[in-house]
Amino acid sequence: MTEQASSPYIYDLADGNADMKPLLGGKGAGVAEMHRIGVPVPDAFTVTTTACVETMRTGEWPAGLWDQIQAAVKRLEERTGRTLGGSEKPLLVSVRSGSVQSMPGMMDTILNLGISDSSVEALGAEAGNPRFAWDSYRRFISMYGEVVEGIAPHIYEDALSAAKQAKGVASDTDLDAEDLKALVAEYKRLSSDALGGAWTTDPMEQLRRAVDAVFKSWNNPRAEVYRRANNISAAMGTAVNVMQMVFGNMGETSGTGVCFTRNPSTGAKELYGEFLTNAQGEDVVSGIRTPRRLEEMEQVLPEAYHQLIETMELMEKHYKDMQDMEFTIQDGKLYMLQTRNGKRTARAALRVAGDLVDEGIIDKTEAVRRIEPGQLDQLMHPGIDPDAKPEAITTGLNASPGAAVGAIVFDADTAEERGKAGEDVVLVRWETTPDDIHGVIQAQGVLTSHGGMTSHAAVVARGMGTPCVAGAHELAIDAANKVVTVNGRTWHEGDIISIDGTTGEVFEGAVKLIPPAMDEDFERIISWADEVKSLVVRANADNGPDAAKAREFGAQGIGLCRTEHMFMDEVRLPAVQRMILAEDQAERAAALAEILPLQQSDFESIFEAMTGLPVNIRLLDPPLHEFLPGLVEQNLKVQELRLTGGSQEDITREEALLARVKKLSEANPMLGLRGCRLSLLYPEIPVMQTKAIVRAAIAVKQRGGDPVLEIMVPLVAYPEELKRLREIIVRVADEEIAAAGIELEYTVGTMIELPRAALVADQIAEYADYFSFGTNDLTQTGIGLSRDDAEGSFLNAYIDNDIIPANPFAQIDRDGVGELVRIGVEKGRKAKPGLKTGVCGEHGGDPESIELFNEIGMNYVSCSPYRVPIARLAAARAALGAQG
Amino acid sequence: MTEQASSPYIYDLADGNADMKPLLGGKGAGVAEMHRIGVPVPDAFTVTTTACVETMRTGEWPAGLWDQIQAAVKRLEERTGRTLGGSEKPLLVSVRSGSVQSMPGMMDTILNLGISDSSVEALGAEAGNPRFAWDSYRRFISMYGEVVEGIAPHIYEDALSAAKQAKGVASDTDLDAEDLKALVAEYKRLSSDALGGAWTTDPMEQLRRAVDAVFKSWNNPRAEVYRRANNISAAMGTAVNVMQMVFGNMGETSGTGVCFTRNPSTGAKELYGEFLTNAQGEDVVSGIRTPRRLEEMEQVLPEAYHQLIETMELMEKHYKDMQDMEFTIQDGKLYMLQTRNGKRTARAALRVAGDLVDEGIIDKTEAVRRIEPGQLDQLMHPGIDPDAKPEAITTGLNASPGAAVGAIVFDADTAEERGKAGEDVVLVRWETTPDDIHGVIQAQGVLTSHGGMTSHAAVVARGMGTPCVAGAHELAIDAANKVVTVNGRTWHEGDIISIDGTTGEVFEGAVKLIPPAMDEDFERIISWADEVKSLVVRANADNGPDAAKAREFGAQGIGLCRTEHMFMDEVRLPAVQRMILAEDQAERAAALAEILPLQQSDFESIFEAMTGLPVNIRLLDPPLHEFLPGLVEQNLKVQELRLTGGSQEDITREEALLARVKKLSEANPMLGLRGCRLSLLYPEIPVMQTKAIVRAAIAVKQRGGDPVLEIMVPLVAYPEELKRLREIIVRVADEEIAAAGIELEYTVGTMIELPRAALVADQIAEYADYFSFGTNDLTQTGIGLSRDDAEGSFLNAYIDNDIIPANPFAQIDRDGVGELVRIGVEKGRKAKPGLKTGVCGEHGGDPESIELFNEIGMNYVSCSPYRVPIARLAAARAALGAQG
Repeated sequence: MTEQASSPYIYDLADGNADMKPLLGGKGAGVAEMHRIGVPVPDAFTVTTTACVETMRTGEWPAGLWDQIQAAVKRLEERTGRTLGGSEKPLLVSVRSGSVQSMPGMMDTILNLGISDSSVEALGAEAGNPRFAWDSYRRFISMYGEVVEGIAPHIYEDALSAAKQAKGVASDTDLDAEDLKALVAEYKRLSSDALGGAWTTDPMEQLRRAVDAVFKSWNNPRAEVYRRANNISAAMGTAVNVMQMVFGNMGETSGTGVCFTRNPSTGAKELYGEFLTNAQGEDVVSGIRTPRRLEEMEQVLPEAYHQLIETMELMEKHYKDMQDMEFTIQDGKLYMLQTRNGKRTARAALRVAGDLVDEGIIDKTEAVRRIEPGQLDQLMHPGIDPDAKPEAITTGLNASPGAAVGAIVFDADTAEERGKAGEDVVLVRWETTPDDIHGVIQAQGVLTSHGGMTSHAAVVARGMGTPCVAGAHELAIDAANKVVTVNGRTWHEGDIISIDGTTGEVFEGAVKLIPPAMDEDFERIISWADEVKSLVVRANADNGPDAAKAREFGAQGIGLCRTEHMFMDEVRLPAVQRMILAEDQAERAAALAEILPLQQSDFESIFEAMTGLPVNIRLLDPPLHEFLPGLVEQNLKVQELRLTGGSQEDITREEALLARVKKLSEANPMLGLRGCRLSLLYPEIPVMQTKAIVRAAIAVKQRGGDPVLEIMVPLVAYPEELKRLREIIVRVADEEIAAAGIELEYTVGTMIELPRAALVADQIAEYADYFSFGTNDLTQTGIGLSRDDAEGSFLNAYIDNDIIPANPFAQIDRDGVGELVRIGVEKGRKAKPGLKTGVCGEHGGDPESIELFNEIGMNYVSCSPYRVPIARLAAARAALGAQG
Repeated sequence: MTEQASSPYIYDLADGNADMKPLLGGKGAGVAEMHRIGVPVPDAFTVTTTACVETMRTGEWPAGLWDQIQAAVKRLEERTGRTLGGSEKPLLVSVRSGSVQSMPGMMDTILNLGISDSSVEALGAEAGNPRFAWDSYRRFISMYGEVVEGIAPHIYEDALSAAKQAKGVASDTDLDAEDLKALVAEYKRLSSDALGGAWTTDPMEQLRRAVDAVFKSWNNPRAEVYRRANNISAAMGTAVNVMQMVFGNMGETSGTGVCFTRNPSTGAKELYGEFLTNAQGEDVVSGIRTPRRLEEMEQVLPEAYHQLIETMELMEKHYKDMQDMEFTIQDGKLYMLQTRNGKRTARAALRVAGDLVDEGIIDKTEAVRRIEPGQLDQLMHPGIDPDAKPEAITTGLNASPGAAVGAIVFDADTAEERGKAGEDVVLVRWETTPDDIHGVIQAQGVLTSHGGMTSHAAVVARGMGTPCVAGAHELAIDAANKVVTVNGRTWHEGDIISIDGTTGEVFEGAVKLIPPAMDEDFERIISWADEVKSLVVRANADNGPDAAKAREFGAQGIGLCRTEHMFMDEVRLPAVQRMILAEDQAERAAALAEILPLQQSDFESIFEAMTGLPVNIRLLDPPLHEFLPGLVEQNLKVQELRLTGGSQEDITREEALLARVKKLSEANPMLGLRGCRLSLLYPEIPVMQTKAIVRAAIAVKQRGGDPVLEIMVPLVAYPEELKRLREIIVRVADEEIAAAGIELEYTVGTMIELPRAALVADQIAEYADYFSFGTNDLTQTGIGLSRDDAEGSFLNAYIDNDIIPANPFAQIDRDGVGELVRIGVEKGRKAKPGLKTGVCGEHGGDPESIELFNEIGMNYVSCSPYRVPIARLAAARAALGAQG
């Protein structure tokens, strides 16, 4: 950088480079870099992001900025031999935002600045096309008036319509130079009236206001929404790029277009782009004219075409990544306006990264760094075919990704029945409950009108990889009459709908789907990830098929097997309820004896699917009332029987059940009688479960398998709880092993899911072979936040209003819950060096959270089977120090 | 200690002293000390507590113990010139437990050991009374058989009855020496049969088994219950005292008694004791014979009497505290059997401590150390209203002061069951035994028809502060039929009675009670406490009268004023409900405007009562559904209207309310939409509350008062929550103050009641003028324990089964919740040095918890008004380093 040329807040084109992106924004750094390596770009200068940040901070421009801009304009005029607004060889410029991370279309742009009463004629003469000049002037006034001065656009539109009407024509193109000249005069008058005389026609003053408008557009609502959605910091600010206008609309030897160096949809190394002759950039994207395929440009503008192809190759090699570029040809001469790393689908990202390794351009670890783990999610579920996508009838939360097509059903029994009969169904419910599980299992997709991202339906659906749209509030569901209404339109049971759990959209009829798979490119990148990661990735699975699926996706064991899901099965629920309602220990033991062989057979299928890899089984966790009818429901049932003359026998039975439901009901079940508390009060439950687990392992081993057994105690707060339950587990397990006359190893661990457990982890470690951090519950207790309640009510408001940065159930709360995890790991390992520590729960599949777990030095994470590849990649990127 | 005499597990009488209480137990150290300073005690040796601890740990006696006991017996025989079980000059001993902290009657005692076929005749000859010898032998066999060998006592009672029947007499005393000799033979036969031949008649073997039985009695159920109720560690073990028997039952020049150096009920310096001639110790405490007042002994046994009075004075001076002593006179010669610091009522404790300071025996800080803060609780309980006092139905001894009202129960199990269920009960018994301890703990009061001031019931009740009337002889109790009759009138189980343990009166029905007050002794000790404490003690109060009461008890401000209690008032609830059900912000604001002046007037009365002292007001905390009908209730109402043909208008209204109740219902309200979350969603609520608080302060100030204002935000988890609410509070408060044209200071603080808040306390401190730790909620979230659910279900089981040492809602969980408090204080003060920190919630009134808060260096605690004196004392003791 030459001292004379640029100044603190301004960088001339020749003084920037690619590394200056934080200061010049993506666009400014990109064009400077192209200029530096000899690619033709229009001359330009960039106002830095720091100028924007300063302005936002103080409410006014930093001292000297305007002087520096005026000097930069002078230097640009000198370099181009043109004058801004001059009556000879006028200089026109574009004024564009340029953020550090791409925010396409979110901020403001002004084109053709510099056109004025004095320069318009000269521009027309230079182009040999007065109409082009007057049309540019007209467009400038309305764009500037609307974007910079905030004038309502309709006043320009009305004037344009009036002009066409007066002339009796229908199209803008039927207006000639004189018509447009008159229209310019009218536009100016209207603008001046709208601003009460504050309208300026001075190009320098217009430039000042335009730069200020771009600064301000950093904080416009759509930019804020976009930043929040894409995790972009609001503190970065935008640069402002002032660039000499080049015109693709100067005739048939001019044109404009967009190109990618590879196919952004598939990743294939092939030509991919569109162009139009005699057009400006907005004509390509606006859809008014249909653009032509880039290949055709070779015939029309061969010289520019070949130069473009060379430039594409040069830029991709230079940036070592697929490029997305904009170009304009003015009178046969090619100008590049922008280059950036191209946005691409997950599939394309994998293909491009793999190919770049094959081409020797990047190495394997760089390929791993290139893939955004969250993006892989879309590959793990069938998706809506992007080419066939119709308009959505309504939208809810994208609760579990993937697309589903099926017949509407309104209850779980019907879902199960029709699903088992081979029909594809979508279960449409107000909200699901654990009682619906059999229906959810059989459904292709779940759609609810209530509940949030971690509502029952959402959690269960994600765990099973079933697409789910939750909380679609516009749905009016009348389950009794099997009708759902949306905005006045009605669908009945059996009608086909489609849902896209990746976007939250709901469609009428069957939309076309594309299947998920780990294709070759996927497998290859993930296997490279495994080479660098240090965290082991396990999966959460509660049955054999899920365990098999998890193994297929590369899970290195089961991190959490929830035994209560086996209790929910409708065949088993009656025995479970008998167990709960038992009058004494003998009756309870009899009911448990019925459940034992069923649990054992479940465990056998899991051990078989995971042979040779560890399977961590958690003892019964939820409060017992979850297995009984609800308190409201049972109260209503009893009252109804009484008021409608039910038989005394029925009343007596239902009242007895109500009494039990009342006794077991809790004000705050999250903090109630569950987990190890239940096992300590009813030791016959852990005894039965330990028997079922150990017998299953023995059976699998006797059949030649290699079960690796971990038994886990949930909700421990006090070391004594674990001590006593460990004694029970060890006693029962050793008895079973001795009786079988077989060698079988097992370990006993605990969940760390309460703040107290983390704080006394050193004491708990004495009785634990391993720790599994239940970060879901640790989030609930650590922040005092009930997931069931918060997501439906204030949590969204908190996120929308920037009180908290992200949903703490999706991304771990680093300062609070993360600190508890760190304390727990440190204290546990202090007492027992090398103690194995892992995470189960949804954070185990979240890349940002995985970064923290890797940093803390944990041994493994565990997540739902479909998130295993994502976690493997995230673990690798964390090991490489790549930012999520 | 001489090497030859004592050995590791044994200390002879001459080798012990008062400082060796941990090793020798209270009794062993006490008699050794008396011996050391020249008071006559029977010769003895003590088996140490370490021998008991070792035996409990390993399940068998430590090596060498038996040899050491045998050697100690030899030495005792040599010193006394007698032989254990010898046929000439036989040595008889008592074998008694002796714990470090007094546990009256909870463990085993065996008297007269050494009596045998060979020694019985010699004993009779020596006493000149063969009947006495044979009666002692008979008593020894049944006592030893029952206590050591576990033989059912009824077999001895049956044999005794048979003997009386055979002779045709009614009383034991009608049996002569020959009868008793035959009975001894029968007892031996029965004992041998009961043990299948394992009965021993060898005194040394009996001694070995007796010592072992005392060891084991440390862990008997009643001892465990007593330890738990009195916070005595189970790890300490008991000593065993083997002491030469002296006989108070050798005739009319013999006797036995119990005396206190001051009145243990009132603390007055006056003679207080009871005795019986020709009796053994058990006759005094068992209530079989009614003892005589000690004063009468001067006539009967003048020499021993004067020696006793001298000894009492000597011992009190020596121990610098009121003594509780047991003595026996054998043939005119006085022996002291035991001395210990006497158990006393709280009132007596204060009086004695104050008097000892006046007498120059102890200083003021020692007086403060002497008072157990928890004991003061009994002074803070109501008494019988003297104006409303009805006529007593009968009167007994005023054994333990205070009034109690409750349902009559006749056995300890029922007392425990109904007491735990929350019912107030009065345990009515012939006399209590150590086996009744679980019932006494749960009863509001104890009433016995037999026993004196030093009976078991009296001693235990005084120790626990439970009101007790003892020896109400007019009561005819028929426990089997659950009926008590007094002068022809009858009461059944469940009938309500009242007792006044201060006067000994018993009343029918529930008499009117009056609130307690601090008397002069109380005031004096507490004022000494204030001189040494560093923690400020505030009170929790929600209205003017409570605030005034708190100030009367010495509160130095209000630590927590819960504004929601004002919302619950039935006059205000309709406006509160309108506020909640409001369709829009305007309607909500209108309802709030109605509540504002009501809240303001509440705050005014609090500021007035607390003028000059800080008042910390918490903004609305509970979830809104707490102010609406319950979900079950409203569902039932709607269904009932539907099924019973209610009007459409009613149905529509109640359905609308139900919809709102449903919407506001939460799965876990503890962790839901409450506290600052509510204020952020409905800012009009904190705006109204801030206005009401500040306007109240302005009004009080304008009337000449001095309001000291603190406004507190509850349930903060994220610094941003406090930042935003602080902005609202400061804006509104400053507007009100400016409008009033008055000077008014105020501070804004926050509750630290969530684990996250403690962990990020440094960030939160930036926006807080002070922290108030809400240890109730911090316990709920930190341990994952819903108070509403846990206390009714598993928490008692946890405490009963020693999984946790104490109820964490009563006594702070040091390792977990306490650690969070420590982290919060440290982080807060790191960010803001000198940050004021306090505790509100029930732990603020618990002595053990106060010890921790003092240790952490907090500024204040806050508790209910009636616990303020206790907290003041506890704070002083914490500052002095006295153990709770």
